[in-house]
Amino acid sequence: MTRKVFLSNRPWQEAREEFLATLRAEGYLTELPVEEIEVTAALGRVTAAPVYAAVSSPHYPAAAMDGIAVRAEATFTAGEGNPLELALGHEAVTVDTGDPVPEGFDAVIMIEEVTFEDKGVAVIRRPAVPGQNIRPVGENIKAGELLVPAGHVLTPFDLGGLLSAGVTRVAVRPRPRVAILPTGTELVPPNPNPAPGQILESNGTMLAGLVTLWGGEPQVYPITPDDYRLLKERLLEAVAASDLVLINAGSSAGREDYTAGLVAEVGRVLTHGVATKPGKPVILGMVEGKPVIGVPGYPVSAALCAELFARPLIYYRQGLEPPRREQVRAVLGRKIYSPLGREEFIRVRLEKEGDRLVAHPTSRGAATIMALARADGIVVVPRLAEGFAAGQEVTVYLLRPLEDLAEEAYGSREE
Amino acid sequence: MTRKVFLSNRPWQEAREEFLATLRAEGYLTELPVEEIEVTAALGRVTAAPVYAAVSSPHYPAAAMDGIAVRAEATFTAGEGNPLELALGHEAVTVDTGDPVPEGFDAVIMIEEVTFEDKGVAVIRRPAVPGQNIRPVGENIKAGELLVPAGHVLTPFDLGGLLSAGVTRVAVRPRPRVAILPTGTELVPPNPNPAPGQILESNGTMLAGLVTLWGGEPQVYPITPDDYRLLKERLLEAVAASDLVLINAGSSAGREDYTAGLVAEVGRVLTHGVATKPGKPVILGMVEGKPVIGVPGYPVSAALCAELFARPLIYYRQGLEPPRREQVRAVLGRKIYSPLGREEFIRVRLEKEGDRLVAHPTSRGAATIMALARADGIVVVPRLAEGFAAGQEVTVYLLRPLEDLAEEAYGSREE
Repeated sequence: MTRKVFLSNRPWQEAREEFLATLRAEGYLTELPVEEIEVTAALGRVTAAPVYAAVSSPHYPAAAMDGIAVRAEATFTAGEGNPLELALGHEAVTVDTGDPVPEGFDAVIMIEEVTFEDKGVAVIRRPAVPGQNIRPVGENIKAGELLVPAGHVLTPFDLGGLLSAGVTRVAVRPRPRVAILPTGTELVPPNPNPAPGQILESNGTMLAGLVTLWGGEPQVYPITPDDYRLLKERLLEAVAASDLVLINAGSSAGREDYTAGLVAEVGRVLTHGVATKPGKPVILGMVEGKPVIGVPGYPVSAALCAELFARPLIYYRQGLEPPRREQVRAVLGRKIYSPLGREEFIRVRLEKEGDRLVAHPTSRGAATIMALARADGIVVVPRLAEGFAAGQEVTVYLLRPLEDLAEEAYGSREE
Repeated sequence: MTRKVFLSNRPWQEAREEFLATLRAEGYLTELPVEEIEVTAALGRVTAAPVYAAVSSPHYPAAAMDGIAVRAEATFTAGEGNPLELALGHEAVTVDTGDPVPEGFDAVIMIEEVTFEDKGVAVIRRPAVPGQNIRPVGENIKAGELLVPAGHVLTPFDLGGLLSAGVTRVAVRPRPRVAILPTGTELVPPNPNPAPGQILESNGTMLAGLVTLWGGEPQVYPITPDDYRLLKERLLEAVAASDLVLINAGSSAGREDYTAGLVAEVGRVLTHGVATKPGKPVILGMVEGKPVIGVPGYPVSAALCAELFARPLIYYRQGLEPPRREQVRAVLGRKIYSPLGREEFIRVRLEKEGDRLVAHPTSRGAATIMALARADGIVVVPRLAEGFAAGQEVTVYLLRPLEDLAEEAYGSREE
């Protein structure tokens, strides 16, 4: 009955660097996959190659106004006191904005400056200048011109630009498929009447939401009980079908915590345990060239672990740098004590007091997901510090835009 | 053949206020619809009512550590020099993290502090304190507690919190369905070989992308040619199936610009024409209690019109305030001249020069969608100003996060 699994206490930065270096060495982050999709379905997708215009815009000389197309040199005699009659269909052709200017015509006179008379005659009182009110070929986009570079996140305006340049399909990075495996005999699907000992499986949906925000395509698998054989089957299935596998939980050293042993059997474990609080019992491994992350079971630990280790992979796998979290400086509302030897991530709520921003630490339990939901940001206590004094200025990594502070009206804020 | 349609030149703010007031008066923005959906599918959705916990979390006294559950009062004699033997299954029960603490037991001793001997005996060398390593019922969430208020955009953490509190379905605002009707006999689906006079239909996808970013559910209809009867049929169909209809284009006063007349026939036109540049020929109307917006055909005009008039509706219809655009101050790289009487929206690129931020106006044509795609922000020249001097400090409304400036490597930036 004796068993002892030792978790390492490495700095997470070191563990992540090794993980990324391994993934780079195996081509996972250097030879990125490509798929070609319709531009109409490419919002938010990342280009895999530069995109060039297929046609010019406009692709013909186009009227820039509603009016009549004329030959400029035939209008030079027109003046206020000298109205000029032009035969419609011959000396002048009516055009609407966007219409092609007929061959041989080189100016457009806007409709407001034209009077029409019977028998198909247009009368003008001002001469036209060559090129006037005509959009030349390629005025906006020239065929062959670079529209967007590789590694670019496509916006609605980009999509409009691509389509107007005749580009209908675009090579993009596939959204990384992320398998999320909830495991544990005690887990049950959420319901309002759980029996004692049953734990409502909520991390799958939380992790799937994070993966979605980071550009990945999550798939939450059905709950797998603590059965080594079943878990192994499920893991191999998930590895084959995905770009990244998150196993939740089973990453600690408890009786039924098979994950590390399993990953070691079918692949290799790079890290088991990092010096963070919460989140210590993390597993970073490789199976068949794919990254597998053992995510701790407590929700806040799971969220932090995903942020530190899954988020960068999902961005890099799309050819993107993970965006840095926005930072603000704030003073601590009270003293924080934090144990030496672990980097602690503390959730804080922010409040404006005059022109100071004050950070109030919230509940620090790893299970208190609503405290994370309500937090405005994170304060990091370094591994070799024992905390911060009340009133000390600290950096806060924002979890939501600062401008939302005033608007929020959570119950917890009135505590 | 004579025809004269007068566009008004109202300030857009006044036109929008009247539009919103009308929609409020008709209940469109005050009696918002509700739908109930699975929490697992509710990422980014807006709550229609406060959400309360269905069960406590934990919903039973739970072990917070792997170890043994004990009766604290039976351990008081234990000490370093006085090891205490506890009979497993009787005086001590092994538990894993999350397991229910059996009836009658009131403390958990962590596994690292226990040695196990043969014949089912656990040995401890330190007394336990009542409640130690036990998470009491409701430690994180109490049944009945407010989880999130109404009008809240659900995050991954919120979803985790709801599920762990036994909440599986949630009442949210339906995503506003936005019908986008590309109209015009000259329009063709994008392709690399258009004939002269054909215009590649690109605004539908651009507008759909914007609607998606604002939380709406766009539906781009097939191209409708300039045929009054067909257009009327399509408009009524779209009004019946949607919360908002964008007709693009046909909002000007050209030969085949039927939109204003059509909206007037089947509903009413509130505004035809606003004093903006670009974007002047806008139509704001109501048909069967639904807003209908006639959006100009030039891409930049279409984007601006959607931003000014469709965006607030889509947010309000979800019970949200439209987020304010982030602003920065910058000095103008060159003089801007802008005509009196129209509020002009000028796209700028931003560059850091030392610690100054310099705004460089880009191409101002209403058709140059790629200039909008590449812009970092917008400078607004008020209706009654004739522009700004070079070097003058102005407000820039950001189109993308400022931190992205350094990273971007567009061709146009090297011009």
